[in-house]
Amino acid sequence: MKLYDYAIAPNPRRVNIFLAEKGIEVPVEEIDLRQKQNVGPDFLAINALGTVQVLELDDGTHISESMAICRYFEAVQPDPPLMGTTPEEIARIEMWQRRVELNGMTPAGEAFRNFEPAFENRAVAGPDKYPLNPELAERGRIRVTKFFDYLDNALDGRDYIAGDSFSVADISGFVLVGFAGWSNLAPEESQTNLKAWYDRMSARPSMQS
Amino acid sequence: MKLYDYAIAPNPRRVNIFLAEKGIEVPVEEIDLRQKQNVGPDFLAINALGTVQVLELDDGTHISESMAICRYFEAVQPDPPLMGTTPEEIARIEMWQRRVELNGMTPAGEAFRNFEPAFENRAVAGPDKYPLNPELAERGRIRVTKFFDYLDNALDGRDYIAGDSFSVADISGFVLVGFAGWSNLAPEESQTNLKAWYDRMSARPSMQS
Repeated sequence: MKLYDYAIAPNPRRVNIFLAEKGIEVPVEEIDLRQKQNVGPDFLAINALGTVQVLELDDGTHISESMAICRYFEAVQPDPPLMGTTPEEIARIEMWQRRVELNGMTPAGEAFRNFEPAFENRAVAGPDKYPLNPELAERGRIRVTKFFDYLDNALDGRDYIAGDSFSVADISGFVLVGFAGWSNLAPEESQTNLKAWYDRMSARPSMQS
Repeated sequence: MKLYDYAIAPNPRRVNIFLAEKGIEVPVEEIDLRQKQNVGPDFLAINALGTVQVLELDDGTHISESMAICRYFEAVQPDPPLMGTTPEEIARIEMWQRRVELNGMTPAGEAFRNFEPAFENRAVAGPDKYPLNPELAERGRIRVTKFFDYLDNALDGRDYIAGDSFSVADISGFVLVGFAGWSNLAPEESQTNLKAWYDRMSARPSMQS
């Protein structure tokens, strides 16, 4: 088993924190996205979409998509549970995990990739060329800012994003805050619930992954 | 228990097909998106993001996000399994389900909502106002077309999107083809694997949901 990784990128980072929380170590092969190794022929033969991470199982099966890789390890090693155990908890964690992705990480990605000149013709991850879309970057910035407010409200009176226990939704939220920082977006001082939650998360050893 | 629904929209449709495959019936309250009922105060009190569906449990808990609702019912009634049972199968189905969403449904939504004049200032689902972005619509059209090719290749020699059994990835794929049609995007005659798969899916009674 091995992981094709690019540890600095937000989606790989989610998996790496997830694995650290479970105490699982997997051998890694780094794919250098700055050198566009992910859209070279060797890696495209592994994942034609050109995205990392990819988990290679011992029988040669390849699993891409960060949350699919997390689900693999959640099923293989359920403890500690990071995706819920009862139907209601499973659903609530998935709801929050997706809210963070769709209203936080996705617009943060739009803000970053459609603005940064280094991404010219690479506004969408993968081998196909798409020009920058500065209006989309601006929309992304506004949406991230609004989502921080939404999260700050949600965290009023509770310790974790999806309720009373740590979950993959907190991992996505933590990675979102770091990723938004790449576009100089950050929680406001007035968002005290969000900031206190972020400080608590930062103290977990896994978050250094 | 009840579902706040808007049955014609693509995400609610995924849940409704999922429930039909499991033979589960849930009372429904229709939220009329054309009348903007989803961004009125009553519904925003249920889901501040203004999206449907929302599942209301008997204790008053609200679960939004279509895939979170599907996971709730998968956990409550595992048969027939639509999200996998072994770790490898769970991961493979989640991988394909997300590929269909991220590279198919999301760009199909960008193509539709950023072009259609009726969506002026509603380019993003929910209560906040964002202008149309015609370049994003055009990029979405190209991405859906490319993804149909990718799916056609993936379906070479197999019956279902995620492998040898029907899963939620097929539901998302089926809904994607219908939704792309709203923007006059359709599989090409030359994409024979994709078209044969779509015909097989269309024959399932659940797909009339």
